[in-house]
Amino acid sequence: MDQRTEIASLGEFGLIDHLTKNIDIKNSSSLVGVGDDGAVIDHFGRQTVLSTDLLIEGIHFDLSYTPLKHLGYKSVVVNVSDIYAMNATPTQILLSIGFSNRFSLEALDEFYAGVYAACEAYNVDLVGGDTSSSQKGFIISITAVGEVSPDKYVKRNGAKVNDLICVSGELGGAFLGLTLLEREKKIFSETGAQPDLEGQKVIVGRLLKPEARKDIIEYFSEVEILPSSMIDVSDGLSSDILHICKQSEKGCVLYEDKLPFNEEAKAFAYKLQLDPTACALSGGEDYELLFTVPQQDYEKIKLNPSISIIGYITEHSEGNHIITRGGNKHELVAQGWNHVK
Amino acid sequence: MDQRTEIASLGEFGLIDHLTKNIDIKNSSSLVGVGDDGAVIDHFGRQTVLSTDLLIEGIHFDLSYTPLKHLGYKSVVVNVSDIYAMNATPTQILLSIGFSNRFSLEALDEFYAGVYAACEAYNVDLVGGDTSSSQKGFIISITAVGEVSPDKYVKRNGAKVNDLICVSGELGGAFLGLTLLEREKKIFSETGAQPDLEGQKVIVGRLLKPEARKDIIEYFSEVEILPSSMIDVSDGLSSDILHICKQSEKGCVLYEDKLPFNEEAKAFAYKLQLDPTACALSGGEDYELLFTVPQQDYEKIKLNPSISIIGYITEHSEGNHIITRGGNKHELVAQGWNHVK
Repeated sequence: MDQRTEIASLGEFGLIDHLTKNIDIKNSSSLVGVGDDGAVIDHFGRQTVLSTDLLIEGIHFDLSYTPLKHLGYKSVVVNVSDIYAMNATPTQILLSIGFSNRFSLEALDEFYAGVYAACEAYNVDLVGGDTSSSQKGFIISITAVGEVSPDKYVKRNGAKVNDLICVSGELGGAFLGLTLLEREKKIFSETGAQPDLEGQKVIVGRLLKPEARKDIIEYFSEVEILPSSMIDVSDGLSSDILHICKQSEKGCVLYEDKLPFNEEAKAFAYKLQLDPTACALSGGEDYELLFTVPQQDYEKIKLNPSISIIGYITEHSEGNHIITRGGNKHELVAQGWNHVK
Repeated sequence: MDQRTEIASLGEFGLIDHLTKNIDIKNSSSLVGVGDDGAVIDHFGRQTVLSTDLLIEGIHFDLSYTPLKHLGYKSVVVNVSDIYAMNATPTQILLSIGFSNRFSLEALDEFYAGVYAACEAYNVDLVGGDTSSSQKGFIISITAVGEVSPDKYVKRNGAKVNDLICVSGELGGAFLGLTLLEREKKIFSETGAQPDLEGQKVIVGRLLKPEARKDIIEYFSEVEILPSSMIDVSDGLSSDILHICKQSEKGCVLYEDKLPFNEEAKAFAYKLQLDPTACALSGGEDYELLFTVPQQDYEKIKLNPSISIIGYITEHSEGNHIITRGGNKHELVAQGWNHVK
């Protein structure tokens, strides 16, 4: 990044040409992509799923420890994760960015390199967007489009009493990664000491380069599971299971000893005297899938090592609880990340 | 707006509940709207059109003279205008906003009142979005979805030699409205004098409450016109016709005496010693439709009083020109609004 080309030297349309010249359209349904007023998408008796996210510097990300390429990758991932959480397959994205004059063309190229890498990984086409200057900082808006067979989409409101509550992967890692990077940033600003990220690859990776659970949706299709409800874990397990319970008008019981942790993350939590369970419940950005299935799907769920059964759905009147390792029953409260402070 | 409720008192989800509680789903294709990870849209052998815009305070709008309700209305209009420019019918929008703590709930309500009024006027459903705080100012991202009969969408690249160049409505008004409001803002800041907007309703309205040309698309369908190319006039006539010419690999000739002006706007331009033609060519945000049709559609075009024929398409090698009232030939250059400075 030694060279610095001022974006102003390209103009808006020159910039768009520059940023989109390497687009590779993969889906035959992408009839019209970037370069027109809108994108046209063909359908063959399927249904379209749309999701959008706004990511703002200083609110959602800190560029002092987030490489722009990782930010581009993550921006796509958080959106396709929403599409998977509907049991759909992402097919296209639209990406808008706003940026102050502090950003060079090379910086935007880094960002887009991450975006394109994620498009490749998740087989989605970038089909539109907008670019603008901003008065302050970097602003990202992504809309993802997905498709799903008629009526196979999964909402948050379908959980039934006695359904199993399941989650993919491991929880709390992204929150621990954030805690580590914030701590190192503080140490650096106070002492100038270089960050010590030794042995923390997993949790830093969970924060800076999360992946969406494409594999889980593919597994559902393969073994014919249709979850009764689903959401992605973006605000924290506690907040997200409460969304399912509220919208399904049900209660829940979670078991602390069933929550899936990564060993490295757990060790780091103890080192900081943090409770891994609290990190899983209140830490966000894990982008795992949280879903409910009827009990008869138990055998199918058991066969997938990436899925943990962590509790079950109850009557609404029974409330929302977690049973601790010691056998105590605590009420679940939403303590997820809140971007409206 | 006497009452002031702090947004923080609602929390993110409380705010979303509040802002979306009055949504009225109008299209039977809106199977799932706000309140889930994504929106689901049904299709019946039609094609989906998507468009997105990012609007940033201080770059795209000035809240010192833009009422928030008008801003909400306009945010939707500029997006559905892109959908019409594809010859499609808008059906859904997704809306994300970011806002600093300077904004009260009442202020957001005003903004959403405008959004919902536009949704009503254009028969679109708000089906999703995101909300966030921002470090500075108000940020709006809208994605619009539209549908079109298979292969009836109109791109920018289909103009043919000898096609007629047509534009709806009148040009330059929004630029003059902006000029007036910027002038009055300056006078107010220097002298404290209240704005004098007497007799300037049209141009102020063109800037603050533009409308998208739904009627033109309906007319095309009614009389069976399929334009060979189309774009909406958002950057200025000059910049926008050059988009069509560049993407169609053609040239053009425009006639100054054919450009449509509003008389009140023209009078105001002369008062400020501005050339109305320059306002039309370089002023943006008119949100009229600029399109090309084969000559055999001449009679159909003539029947619609809202459409002006302003020139014709030539070979690429002949370049892009405007013939002045005096008979002089000038090269057209892009001088549209540029949001990447």
